[in-house]
Formats: sequence, structure tokens, C-alpha cells
Amino acid sequence: MAPVADTDVSIESISAYGKARSTVKDKPLSDEELRLTDDYMRASLYLCLGMLYLRHNPLLREPLKVEDLKARLLGHWGSDAGQIFVYVHMNRLIKKYGLDALFISGPGHGAPAVISQSYLEGVYSEVYPDKSEDVEGLRKFFKQFSFPGGIGSHATPETPGSLHEGGELGYSISHAFGAVFDHPDLIALTMVGDGESETGPLATSWHSTKFLNPITDGAVLPVLHLNGYKINNPTVLARVSHKELESLFYGYGWTPYFVEGSDPDTMHQAMAATLEKCVLEIRGYQKKARESGKAFRPFWPMIVLRSPKGWTGPRTVDGHYLEGFWRAHQIPIPDVASSKQHLKLLEDWMKSYTPEKYFTEDGKLIPGLKKLAPEGNARMSANPVANGGLIKKPLKLPDFRDYKVEVKHGGNTNAPSMSNMAVFLRDVIAKNQTNFRLFGPDETESNKLGGVYAAGKKVWMGEYFEEDADGGNLATEGRVMEMLSEHTCEGWLEGYVLSGRHGLLNSYEPFIHIIDSMVNQHCKWIEKCLEVEWRAKVASLNILLTATVWRQDHNGFTHQDPGFLDVVANKSPEVVRIYLPPDGNCLLSCMDHCLRSSNYVNVIVADKQDHLQYLDMEAAIEHCTKGAGIWDWASNDQGQEPDLVMASCGDVPTHESLAATALLREYIPELKIRFVNVVDLFKLIPHGDHPHGLTDTEFSAIFTDNKPVIFNFHSYPWLIHRLTFNRKGSHNLQVHGYNEKGNIDTPLELAIRNKTDRFSLAMEALDKMPNLGNKGSSAREKLLNEQIKCKNEAFHEGIDPEYIRKWVWPF
Amino acid sequence: MAPVADTDVSIESISAYGKARSTVKDKPLSDEELRLTDDYMRASLYLCLGMLYLRHNPLLREPLKVEDLKARLLGHWGSDAGQIFVYVHMNRLIKKYGLDALFISGPGHGAPAVISQSYLEGVYSEVYPDKSEDVEGLRKFFKQFSFPGGIGSHATPETPGSLHEGGELGYSISHAFGAVFDHPDLIALTMVGDGESETGPLATSWHSTKFLNPITDGAVLPVLHLNGYKINNPTVLARVSHKELESLFYGYGWTPYFVEGSDPDTMHQAMAATLEKCVLEIRGYQKKARESGKAFRPFWPMIVLRSPKGWTGPRTVDGHYLEGFWRAHQIPIPDVASSKQHLKLLEDWMKSYTPEKYFTEDGKLIPGLKKLAPEGNARMSANPVANGGLIKKPLKLPDFRDYKVEVKHGGNTNAPSMSNMAVFLRDVIAKNQTNFRLFGPDETESNKLGGVYAAGKKVWMGEYFEEDADGGNLATEGRVMEMLSEHTCEGWLEGYVLSGRHGLLNSYEPFIHIIDSMVNQHCKWIEKCLEVEWRAKVASLNILLTATVWRQDHNGFTHQDPGFLDVVANKSPEVVRIYLPPDGNCLLSCMDHCLRSSNYVNVIVADKQDHLQYLDMEAAIEHCTKGAGIWDWASNDQGQEPDLVMASCGDVPTHESLAATALLREYIPELKIRFVNVVDLFKLIPHGDHPHGLTDTEFSAIFTDNKPVIFNFHSYPWLIHRLTFNRKGSHNLQVHGYNEKGNIDTPLELAIRNKTDRFSLAMEALDKMPNLGNKGSSAREKLLNEQIKCKNEAFHEGIDPEYIRKWVWPF
Repeated sequence: MAPVADTDVSIESISAYGKARSTVKDKPLSDEELRLTDDYMRASLYLCLGMLYLRHNPLLREPLKVEDLKARLLGHWGSDAGQIFVYVHMNRLIKKYGLDALFISGPGHGAPAVISQSYLEGVYSEVYPDKSEDVEGLRKFFKQFSFPGGIGSHATPETPGSLHEGGELGYSISHAFGAVFDHPDLIALTMVGDGESETGPLATSWHSTKFLNPITDGAVLPVLHLNGYKINNPTVLARVSHKELESLFYGYGWTPYFVEGSDPDTMHQAMAATLEKCVLEIRGYQKKARESGKAFRPFWPMIVLRSPKGWTGPRTVDGHYLEGFWRAHQIPIPDVASSKQHLKLLEDWMKSYTPEKYFTEDGKLIPGLKKLAPEGNARMSANPVANGGLIKKPLKLPDFRDYKVEVKHGGNTNAPSMSNMAVFLRDVIAKNQTNFRLFGPDETESNKLGGVYAAGKKVWMGEYFEEDADGGNLATEGRVMEMLSEHTCEGWLEGYVLSGRHGLLNSYEPFIHIIDSMVNQHCKWIEKCLEVEWRAKVASLNILLTATVWRQDHNGFTHQDPGFLDVVANKSPEVVRIYLPPDGNCLLSCMDHCLRSSNYVNVIVADKQDHLQYLDMEAAIEHCTKGAGIWDWASNDQGQEPDLVMASCGDVPTHESLAATALLREYIPELKIRFVNVVDLFKLIPHGDHPHGLTDTEFSAIFTDNKPVIFNFHSYPWLIHRLTFNRKGSHNLQVHGYNEKGNIDTPLELAIRNKTDRFSLAMEALDKMPNLGNKGSSAREKLLNEQIKCKNEAFHEGIDPEYIRKWVWPF
Repeated sequence: MAPVADTDVSIESISAYGKARSTVKDKPLSDEELRLTDDYMRASLYLCLGMLYLRHNPLLREPLKVEDLKARLLGHWGSDAGQIFVYVHMNRLIKKYGLDALFISGPGHGAPAVISQSYLEGVYSEVYPDKSEDVEGLRKFFKQFSFPGGIGSHATPETPGSLHEGGELGYSISHAFGAVFDHPDLIALTMVGDGESETGPLATSWHSTKFLNPITDGAVLPVLHLNGYKINNPTVLARVSHKELESLFYGYGWTPYFVEGSDPDTMHQAMAATLEKCVLEIRGYQKKARESGKAFRPFWPMIVLRSPKGWTGPRTVDGHYLEGFWRAHQIPIPDVASSKQHLKLLEDWMKSYTPEKYFTEDGKLIPGLKKLAPEGNARMSANPVANGGLIKKPLKLPDFRDYKVEVKHGGNTNAPSMSNMAVFLRDVIAKNQTNFRLFGPDETESNKLGGVYAAGKKVWMGEYFEEDADGGNLATEGRVMEMLSEHTCEGWLEGYVLSGRHGLLNSYEPFIHIIDSMVNQHCKWIEKCLEVEWRAKVASLNILLTATVWRQDHNGFTHQDPGFLDVVANKSPEVVRIYLPPDGNCLLSCMDHCLRSSNYVNVIVADKQDHLQYLDMEAAIEHCTKGAGIWDWASNDQGQEPDLVMASCGDVPTHESLAATALLREYIPELKIRFVNVVDLFKLIPHGDHPHGLTDTEFSAIFTDNKPVIFNFHSYPWLIHRLTFNRKGSHNLQVHGYNEKGNIDTPLELAIRNKTDRFSLAMEALDKMPNLGNKGSSAREKLLNEQIKCKNEAFHEGIDPEYIRKWVWPF
């Protein structure tokens, strides 16, 4: 059956079976090298099966019994052989050419492949001494795999040499590029699963070559593993014609080299030759660019490896396909405990790898094979790049105080917080030309951060046109990475940070949800790293959200979603931090703090428009250090219990809250109002639940236990309730925030729709104080009239009446 | 400067300027047709500028004055000309061949193009009579655009003919495929922005052709618009060599036809010829497949249109590039209100389109041009497919009661809720062979839904291998859509539902976060539709989440994230529903309910493993109809105030909660315990905030106002606090749920880590009742010992001790 019309497709040409078919025809291995390479691979495959099945009798020196098996069989066999195959051939080249190489394992659940290699290299026993290179160590090594209290089936943080877990698929290529940026000598050998390659993030990340400079950056060498099957389906790329595949990768800007088949000997020669050809091509392009000083974009080499899923396993079991079919995905023969026949089949299969030839009596890999691995840090599972905290250099930071916004009188100065902060970022970039990058999906200029280009332009390896000179800010060498793919930007940043550098992602607030799942996974990675002794802390991953909901009035409803904070707040308190600086000096202070920190995901939310400024630098630092506190200058309850607490979190909401406070004080001067601002969102959580959380005493001292608190929040209001639900007085909290109401509105209308405007806040406050009697109700009426008037004016004029700007703090 | 080595790239070959260069060389238009087509396009372009700038003087019959301008200029010019160009040429073919065509506008902010076309077609005035086809109607039509209270700059729900807003980029192709599945005569002409094409979701969605059957489905005709620039950057695809581009799309499985240049006359001929060639090819492939009855996968035609960004605008303004550069993205000349010179420039530019020739004295499009548009529903902006609710046929549903799990005694039967429900789904599929599809990213079988394949196999248009016959369940015609791209699956489903059909997405719970943003955007779309009078309600978009957190013990931490519910709960209560059925009969009842509903996003969370069953079908229906209630059979507080409420939401948590209740009743028989289960999560919100919400009286009647409530929840515990924060007695709620703690654990260990196991729940309950004295503390000790024992056993054995299965409800 051949559903494709008009093409050269034939079942034979896309089969994973037979003698090797390859683009490169050399046979670089001597017979001896070939035999050793194959032996090394078989030793590794034996270890994989051991991990999947055994808890005793690791070298099968006794007949295999049910008691030797783990009681619950978990783990994956499908992509192991292909990954090992590539890994061992890279070892030869690392030794031959002294390469600095990293292995990135993209296919899902491929851990046995990389872990078995790490064990053979000796690295595993070095970092986990109880998994020693002897029989008992091997037994423990097997038993821990996919075992309670043990390690998982992905390249988790516990895996030496890994900076890419592969639990959620799609990010191997972007992580690899992130790792090689500014690491000119590094080659990231990146296995890409053909399942993974169907994901959106992976599909676009092939274009990363348009952002890689061959002089200053290293290289990514992808091996697309056409393993043929996912969990229960064939993969798309394994079932299209050869010509389509070749075209696709040429079209993505790569030179694809094919290695296809199942016959071990010819496959070894083909992969040895192909991998060497690719490495030499990479070095050739780098040499040409570096010697000439002229950066260009080569069609970088890549490899398409087509081999059977579950390669080297039985082709069929009981008349059903196993190897070369999706049944080889997970535990290849699941019923070995209940079927004697299958237990025997497993035993024969495992013994067919002849472990007795490869491991000494003590259970050590024999020296003849040991020598195939590189030594020291040249071993891929020992590459310090994958433990980026080890090689991390601190950022050289200018003094952020030097960039302060002048604030004489709170609420009197109007200034652009974001573009002011951009000057600070510019100098951060200037001082860290190989250690810091700014990432963003085509929004850096729009986000008012264009000032940074003075110190680092946008990297662009595509073609150049005449008009680019007219403010294009493009260069082959630069510090700003912009592609219209939040996934790719985030993946690059993650790879960059995990390999020991620093960075910041800037994004429109609404579209950061595109990478919810990536940020989740990064949080999980850095949290797990805290439990892995030998991992050093990496720099924090910093996310700056702007183009925020309150000024997305003109872009309408699709651009209004501040809910990323809810996603982040679900992650472990060990690793997440959220800041909502109310003004420019606080933004500077928060940014400086985030750039200095380690092992967090920091989220800063700040609007990009001009805003009123409240705190001079000294006050800002004090306020941000506390994270939440009373603004005495905006309060009139000094030395007394207040009648009312007006609280805010976020820049636009703070502005409205202050305005509401001013209105209330104007209308009812005797009202004692305390003004509270929260910068560090996690201050609201109980101290026991988050290291930043206020103690209950501190919380009460700020918010009181029994006074109405009108809290104006940047995001969905429920987040505040969720953070404060078990605080004394939480019932007195009336939170206003975005209620998922919006369209094409003026900023005022948008605020009124969601009741975050000054009038709604002040009216709400009065509603909470019925004891004010007539005074209260007449003030309420005035507020309502004022609100209607402003709204009508705004509507009539069809413009933002600049109502948020014209107001000046009057006290 | 040419950074690409070894290729045929030349600036000229990828320039957007000059006479047309095209793959197809015919010139099908007569001089008269050419002139009319160009006039029609110019009339449309004039309308675009009018929308961007004017609120008075719509036909510029008076000299243009500042007062004619909108005070705040908003809107986008960049992609308008290219989109209009394609639209008008499609009109000719619709008329010539009687096509059923839909226009999907992928590029961001391209609304002026489609709205101006809708106005010229007369559709706009039909659905919005105040935007009539006269001078005053035109004035209003201009003024409302990007104006407070008016319409946005995307193809929002207010846009006739739109089912794809394009607010968040990346989904045009997957939406288009969703719309043409099972619509064999439909052609979705789909403009793809070159910015959009950099996103991951778009990049992989080109592979949708491997899932489209030319006999039963219609066709997607993509036009990749190489507009050259995003907001502030060149686009990747506009800056690579011609050969790369061509290869890329051939590699994706398409036949790319090029139309490139800026000279209007030659461009019109080229596009007319190319579009006709494409349409005829599509019809040819369809004819061949339909007549032979043999489905095959053609290299479907697509068009690459390279034209200058802001085409037909001034190339430079004040010496800076405008047309053909990113400055043409938004308002092309922003300072017309302050610069007299620029006001004049705008006026001259607008007049250069000669509106006076195209609009009658009354302001109507002249008949000579009017006739270029198709008529009635053949007009693309009137195609009922884009208002899917209109053509929606109700699902034919079997009686879900017929699929019930037999439950004699609650908690005594163990059964697989999910695979049982799959039988119901199988029959839904059988009865709705052109009206329902099941979507999922390669997880349908793993999710125990494989039973459905008996009624509809997986659509697969890639090659077939011998082993596929061995349980592959693939077919060229089928009902199940599986690609390892959550984005593509969700996009297909959205397109399918919005064009009037029904469907369900199944996914692992942790990875549904990948499409957080898509679901957000769909929620916003259907909510806005409620405000658009002429839109009919579409079927709900149904999402079934399984492989849930509590049984992801063996996949580890990366697979544990139940936080999608937080994202959904942020959306408008008008459009979101969340169900957590505790057992198999409740799952059936919820699924039936969701499939019957309209205009919601329904989320159902249910585990796929075998579980204890509690309710017979009658009880399940009653319970699900209430949504939350007391389980009398598991309570012993009948007729009295309870001492304690044990509550649960979710299947695994319910199991543990019941077990905890049993333990407590065993240890302290005199304790009066009420057992409460919540199926419909929004029951917890106050009635005023969600239509499903319980009134305060109802809530108190279930949960009491003052008794301890130990609430075991499926997801992050804070969500319950957030939903209940303003309920009386909310302080008595102690919520247990996933606390972001996990690794490779047994299910028991995972539960203990997060305190959702029976022992932790029972101990927590005792802690809340200090008045139990000795009896309480001795029971607590027993519980703790039991917990430790179970945990150790589990750890020692390395298996799930099946502790959740062995327990039988003892009362």
C-alpha cells in the first residue's frame, strides 16, 4: 500500500532493515576496531536490559530465576540501541581529535542508553560510589533503575552528563543550541527522537542555525533517530519518502547524511565514517570562519539514523513483531515472571550479548574495552558543561543605583520604568559579552528594551538587505536573540543557563502561557538538582513580563492573560520567585537581585509605558528588600490603628490604589488609611510554606487582623486568596484584579470592567465601612458620578484620557 | 553581505521587489479583468487605511483635516495588501468553478484586510446593518476599528467569515485542517504569516497532510506570505535561499508554487494563474482518489507569496524605509496629527487609490466592481462553515446507561473505568462517522481507550509496513487522529468544532500544559462569540485528562503536574466546566453530559487504571447531576450533626478519603463522619460567580459551617482554597493535594509525600479533633505505625503493594 502519489517512495528505501545504506561510503574502522566497537556497544546493551529486568544475579552467572527479576518491570528499551550506537562512535572521535563534546538525549525514556554509557566510562561509579565497578555495584546499579527511591527512565538530573531530561519532548535541539552559544569549542551531539520531532517546539528549533555564529559559538550535531515508532504509532518522518526527508532538512538549512539499516558490521563502518565526516565538516567551517574573521551560515551537517526500534532485540515474540515495531517501546517482554518460556527467552537474549566476555571476574569492564572511552572530563558523561554551575562565572554587574529614576516627591514624577531599566541591561550586556544574553520573541524593541542594542545587537545569520542598515540592529555577532518562537527562545535560554551562563527572557505577558509547560519542566529540573549532591547551582532563569494586561486594551481580549503567575506559583517554593515592582527604581532593584541569584525561576512583571514614580532609590531598595510593607508617605494612620488598609501589587494597580486612597482622603479627611504595597508576591504565603513568606505576626502587623483590606492586584484576584487563605483576617481581604473581562477599551474602561479602577476601589472601601453613615454614602455617590463621567468622556473621545497620568499624589 | 556558504542565494532572488517571478507562467486575465481586479484591490486597500485613520470624511470628499482622524491611531497595515491580493484572486475562482471556500487569516493583526473584503462583499452590512453600504455606514465602519467599544485588529469573533482569530500566532494551518476534515468540498484558503511560521505549532502543522484523506476530507490551500518582517525583525523564511525554501516545503510534503514581486500588473497575472493551477490540482487529486476509491497522499499545492510588507505604501518617509520594511507593521505614518506634511502625505496616498472611482455618490461600491465578488454563501465572509453552530448536527448518542459498570455494593467492585468508557466512545464514533473525531498525541491506546479503534481506526496517510497489520490500527479512513503534537491535535479539534462538528481530545494530564495558551485562546473565542448576535453556539471542546499525577509514580517528577485546572479556572465561568468523576459510572455520566453540551471547554479528569467502583448507574446520575453531595452510604452521621466531614474530589483521592474514613470508623466507632464527594469542581464557587456554584445555604448544608473538613483533592490544594475562600467555614477546610513532591515512588509513597494517603488524612482529622483525648492519640499512633509499615513494605518490595486495591469498603 503506497498512499503517496508521484514520488520515489518505496518500502525498501525507507526500511530500517538490511545492510547499511549511507551517504558516506568510507570504512574507517580496522577489523579490530570494528570488533571492539561492537563489543562495547553489546556490553552497553546488556546493561540496559539489566536495568530493565534485574535486581539480583547481574551478570547471569547463575541461571536466571524469577527471584532475580524486579517485581514491577518498568523502563524503556525502544531507543536504547540507537543512542548507544551513536554515543560509542562519538567516543572514538573525541579521542582521535580531542573534542569537547556533550551528549544530549532527546528521545523519550532513553535513560538506559546514557546511564549505561556513563557506567562503562566509570563516571557513574565516581559520582555514586555505591554503584561501584564490581558485581555488587552493578547489582545496585541495575536495581535502582525505575525503582522506588531510585532513578527515572529519562536523563534526569541524577544522570551524569545530562542537561536535558527529555521528560517532556521537544526541546533537545533548542537546549543544545543554548549550550553551545559562546562555547566555541563545544560540540553538542544531539539525539533527536522521531517522535519528539513531531512536536511544534522541535519542528521550529531546526531553524536555530540562523542564529549561530561559527566564530564565537560551538556546533550542534543532530542525529535524527528514525526509530520508526512512538508509543503506539509509527512516526511521521519514518514514513515519508527519502526525497522528502532529504529536502526537509536541506530546507531547514542542514546537510543531512544518512545511515540506515540493521546489519551491525556495515552500520558501524557507516556511522564511523559519517560521524567523522560531520565532525570534520564542522571543524572546517569553524576554521574558515575563524581564520577569515567572516561569519557565515554553513549548511551544518546532521545525521539521519534509521535503525529498528528496539534494535538487536528479537524481531518477533510469539508471532508478534517486537523489534522494529512499537511493541519494543517499553519493557520488551513483559510477562517474564509468569511465563517460563519467556523467562528463558530473556535469558538467552541477554546472554547473547556475552557479558562474560566483557566483564572481569570482579565485574569490571575489561581493559580492552575500557580504553575505548575517553578519559577524565573528555568523557561525555563527565563534561562539566552539563553541570553548568561548576563552570559558571558570576555576572559583572554595574551598580544599579547609578541608573535610578530621580524621585523627589512620590507620585509626582512620570517616567518610563522599562526603558530606563534597559540602560542598566545595556551595561550588563556590555560587561558580560560572552556570559549573558537577552532572549525574546521579536518583542524586545516593542517592550522598550531597544536601548540594549547599543551594547549587543540582534544575532542574525540570515541574509541582509539594504534597509537593515536603517535601524535594523542586526549583526552576525550580538547579544540579543530574537525569533518568533517563545519555545525556541526559552529552550535556548535554558540551555544557556544550564551550561553555566546567565540570561533573561522578555515577553509579552499574555503569550508567556505558550511556554507554561517548559517553565514547569525547568522548575522541576532545578528543584531536583538541589537533591543531587554533585550538581552545582546554576544561574536563575529570569523572565521579564511586560506588555501587561492593563495596557493591552487596544489589542483586545486575546492579549489579556496575567495567569502565568498561577502556573509558576504551583511550583516548588524552593525554586520560584515572583516580583511585581511598582515603579522604576523598584524594577531596577528587583532586576539586580534576580540577576545575582541562583537556581530560581524569577518572574518580574512590569509595564512598559510611562508611569508615575513613587520611591527614590534608597526607599526602593529598602522596600524591595522587605518585599512588602507600609508606605508611610501615602498613609495617614501613623501611630494609630487604621480604619482601612489599601493594598496593591503591580504597577498599574498600585497607581489606581494610590489614586483611590487620595480620593478617599479628599472626600473623608478623617479616615485613617494605611497604604501597603507588595513587591515580592511570596511574602503573602505563610513563612512555613515559602522561605520568603511573612510570619503571621509580620503579616498582621502590616495588614491588621480585623480591618478591611482593599487589595488591588495585577493578576487574577484568586491568586491572592489562595496565598493568604490561612492568614488571620483573610476574610477581610477584598481582592480586585483581572476578571477575564475585556475587549477594545480605553485603559480606564478596562479597569472599570474589572473593578480595579480608583473609583471602584474607593467605593468598595466605603461599602466595607458602613459605620461612616451619610458621609460614606455621599462620598460613594460622588465617586460613582465621577466614574461615569470619566468613562463617558473616555468613550466619547475614544482615547485614553490619560487619566492615569494626570493624577498627582496630593499629600 | 551574504552569510550563507555554498548556496545559490542572492539578494535579487529573494527580493520582494520587481516584476512578478512565478512558477506558473500563464496570464489568464484579460486586460479588463486585470484592471477590475486591481481596482477591487485598491478599493479594499483604501478601506484599510480608512479603518486605521479616519472617523470622519470617509471618502475624502473634503480635504483631510486633523479632526477627521481618530485621536489614538491603532491598527496594522503590514500584511493587509498581501492578504487582500490573495482574497480577490480567490473570488474569481469561486465564481468560475463554484467553489466552497473559506478564508483563514494567519498573519497577526490582519483584520483590515478581511474586514474590508467583507464590507465590499456586502456581508458586513448584512450582519451589522448600521455599517451600511453608504457614506455614513462607511464612516461608522472606519471609526469602530481598533476603537473603544469597537472591534479589534485580529479576525475576532465579530469578523464575518472568521473561525480563526490570529491573536496568538501559530494555529492557522491546524485550524484549517480541522475545518476541512469531513467537509470534502471545502477549500480552506489559508494565509500563513512568515512571522507565524517561526512558531513551533505552525512549523509542525505542515505535516497535517499525513492525516488528510482526499476522498472524505476537503483541502487546505496555504499561502505562505513572505511579507519579510515581523514587528521589528526580518523573518527567517524571507531571508534564506530560494532553494532552501523550495526544499523545505517539498520536504513537508507540499508542492510550493512561487509568486514574488511588487509590480501590480504582472503580480495579478501570476497570482491568478497560480491560484487557478492550485485549485485545479486540488480538484484533480480529489477526483482521482474519489473515482478510484483509493486514498493517496498527493504533494498538495501551496503558494509562497513574496511581496513587500506594507505593499503599495510609500517606500520611504523622511528618508526612512517604510514599505518593504518593518516600519510598515503597524500604523504606517504615526504622526499625521502633529505633522502637516505627513497629513498631506497620508491624504495623497489615500487619494492615490482613487476612491472616487470605486464608490458611488451614495458611498456604495460601483456595480462594475461589486460583480467581482461571489454571491450569497459563496462569499468567503458569508461561508456558514465559519459560523459552525449554524450547520452543527447534534451527535447521535447511544444511551450511556447501557455501558454501566455493575456495582452492587459501593467500594466492593474493582473495574477499569476508562476502558469501560471507551466502549461508549466506540459507539459514539460508530454512530457519527462524519461528525465526531477523537484526537490525541499518540496516547489513545496507552490511555486505555484503544477500544474505540473497532469503530474508527487511526487516520494514517504515511507509508504502510508489513508489521502494521499486526495490531497497528491504521487506515486511510478513520476517526482517531494521533500525532505527537498536542498543538496540532488541539488545533485540529478547534477547527473541527468551530466548523460545526464534535470531538474529544485525550491527553496525559502533565503534558496538557503544552496547550495552556491554545485552550485559553479558545475559551476567549467562545466567550466573545456569546456577545456576537449572529453567531450560533458550537459544540463544546472536550478534553479528557488521564495518566494522572497519582499514577505517574513510575514516570517520575516530570510527569506530575495537575495544574491545568488552575489555568482553566481562570477563564470566564460562562465557558469552562471541570469534572472529576470518582468512578466509572460517574465518568460515563459526565462524558455523556459533556458531549451533549454547547460552547464550553469541558475538562474531565479520570485515571486510566482499575479502580474501586462506588455508585451504581442510578446513583451516579443523581450524584453527577447534583455535582457535589453527601454519600450517605459512606457516612454515619445520618440525622445528626457530624463530628467531621471527609471530602474528596478526584478518583484516587476519593479512594484514599474513603479508606481514611473507614480507618477512623474502625478505630473510633462513635465518631460521626460525613462523607462528601465533589464531581463538578465549580460547585464550590459561590453561585453568583459561576452558574454551577452552590448557594451559601447549599454549601453549608453539605460542608457545615463549623466542623473540620478534611478535603482530599486531585490537584494542587490551593485551587480549593481559592474556590472556597469566601465561604462560611472556609477556615475549617484542610485541603490535601499534590504539593509538587515526587520522584520514582510507589503510589503509596507518592501519596504519603503529598499527605493524600489514607493515613495522613485520618491523622489530620484526629489532629483537628483534640477533644478526642486519649482515644484520639492512640488511634493516631496506630495510624502512624501502619503508615510506616506500609511504606517500608512498599519500599522493600519495590512494588506498589496494591494497597489501594486490597481495601474494601467494610461498612
